[in-house]
Amino acid sequence: MQILVVGSVALDDIQTPFGKRLGALGGSASHFSLAASLLSLVRIVAVVGQDFPRRYLDHLKKRGVDIAGIRLTTGETFRWRGHYEFDMNTAFTDETRLGVFATFNPELSLAERKAPVLFLGNIDPEIQLKVLKQMESPLFVGLDSMNFWIEQKKKELLKVIRRVDALFLNDAEVRQLAGEASLIKAGRHIQKLGPKMVLIKKGEHGVVCISRKFTFVAAAYPTEDVKDPTGAGDSFAGGVVSYLFSRLGPKISDPSEEIIRQAVIWGAAVASFCVEDFGTKGLDNLTRQKVQMRCHRIFEHTRFEPHD
Amino acid sequence: MQILVVGSVALDDIQTPFGKRLGALGGSASHFSLAASLLSLVRIVAVVGQDFPRRYLDHLKKRGVDIAGIRLTTGETFRWRGHYEFDMNTAFTDETRLGVFATFNPELSLAERKAPVLFLGNIDPEIQLKVLKQMESPLFVGLDSMNFWIEQKKKELLKVIRRVDALFLNDAEVRQLAGEASLIKAGRHIQKLGPKMVLIKKGEHGVVCISRKFTFVAAAYPTEDVKDPTGAGDSFAGGVVSYLFSRLGPKISDPSEEIIRQAVIWGAAVASFCVEDFGTKGLDNLTRQKVQMRCHRIFEHTRFEPHD
Repeated sequence: MQILVVGSVALDDIQTPFGKRLGALGGSASHFSLAASLLSLVRIVAVVGQDFPRRYLDHLKKRGVDIAGIRLTTGETFRWRGHYEFDMNTAFTDETRLGVFATFNPELSLAERKAPVLFLGNIDPEIQLKVLKQMESPLFVGLDSMNFWIEQKKKELLKVIRRVDALFLNDAEVRQLAGEASLIKAGRHIQKLGPKMVLIKKGEHGVVCISRKFTFVAAAYPTEDVKDPTGAGDSFAGGVVSYLFSRLGPKISDPSEEIIRQAVIWGAAVASFCVEDFGTKGLDNLTRQKVQMRCHRIFEHTRFEPHD
Repeated sequence: MQILVVGSVALDDIQTPFGKRLGALGGSASHFSLAASLLSLVRIVAVVGQDFPRRYLDHLKKRGVDIAGIRLTTGETFRWRGHYEFDMNTAFTDETRLGVFATFNPELSLAERKAPVLFLGNIDPEIQLKVLKQMESPLFVGLDSMNFWIEQKKKELLKVIRRVDALFLNDAEVRQLAGEASLIKAGRHIQKLGPKMVLIKKGEHGVVCISRKFTFVAAAYPTEDVKDPTGAGDSFAGGVVSYLFSRLGPKISDPSEEIIRQAVIWGAAVASFCVEDFGTKGLDNLTRQKVQMRCHRIFEHTRFEPHD
């Protein structure tokens, strides 16, 4: 096991202007691991209920994801129902049924505690901290969160943020957490709280990566048909973290500026596939070669000569 | 005269979270010409009322703008009152008093008709068309418009769009004009209606330039303090058009892909200075060297090696 991801495995009911899917495979850990498994060995730690379709577990396994850490328990799987309107940058949550996820408080196995890389999907920051404390000596920790935790458990969130290497938030969350309208100022402020890098996700507008030494502004791939943005952020994180580990191995704790930039582009490329279909479908037939080609296309779409 | 700009010269009352200015120099032609005058000889054709401060005319002149085409007439200068909230991407118009601009219908002089480059600021598309018809044989025509004309005079707007080389619209306007939610599809659709290039302005998220042969996605300079976004779009257009003319001269009718990309970055750099202060103040002390340095900084902020 190279990367351990702790988060949700869920069933999503999604409606976008381009269609509707009921009970699609969803959750932060699903998207993250499917994206990351292109480059790394990823184990999911999550919990699902008895209603969780066997075929989704088979699918994860087929895509190389280590599902030994998915606990099956009595009750219903976490279910999210949401929709998007024509501006696909905003998800509207219609219903959240936590089910078995409500009491999710994972006890890591010995092997899991030794994982070199940890990704904490968007869950209660208190749980994130508890998981982090169980780890022996992770070389690299990534973390995602959301507006709900910024509002409800800011203190706990700041505590766990202090201990991570890469923080993934969207632009609104970064502004909210820093209490600052300027995105760049807000990102710099948060970076100073602890993380080596703050990865600000801006949906179709790309990503801004703020580290202590540099700011990298990455455009998104100009996708013609965004069918469903669900999971794009977690696919991005899966791409970034797995890229860093596959390039650096144990040296992941000290990534160079060049490799961080490449990792962000790799993650953006993976996410651009995710949004082309519903749920995790966009990641289904993904190969390293396809992502590599898309990285080159992003390069083609954004390159210019600095000479004037 | 190298570039003729026909548009508004106005007085703006602006409120943003960072302050308030009354009677600031504004209008599409003011911002465009101040931005373009760094590289080219620009003449404004516009109309102002008797209340228009002499010092603004002096200022334009001092910055190298040819003001011989600004008609002074009886009545009030076009006045725009608007505000921005914390999301500085959206301007709220509180009041528009057209004044002498209501009957603006310029008759170009013989010299003006011979200008090699024309920029049609955001005015009634019927007037834009009338101006265009007076031109002898312009090598390059740029055009800006807005939601109001897309709603009220779409037929006339499409007629003039067919005859321009570069169309400048923001992302919402592109979606609205094409009736298409996908920005890239919408831009491609509009490009096919006539313009060599469609420059889609996305505020802090940069620019997408769609031409027949390529799509260029340019990030904005990561400005820490946006004080007032008013005029950013016209400054951008002034930067792009003047860059193209200064690099290409009479060959501006057939710009290469590389030079279009550089022009977009130059325009984005100029616009990033514009938003750093109120009204046209951000352009006041601008020099070619400062813009050049910012282009290099945009390069630094966005560069990555395509190798993975």
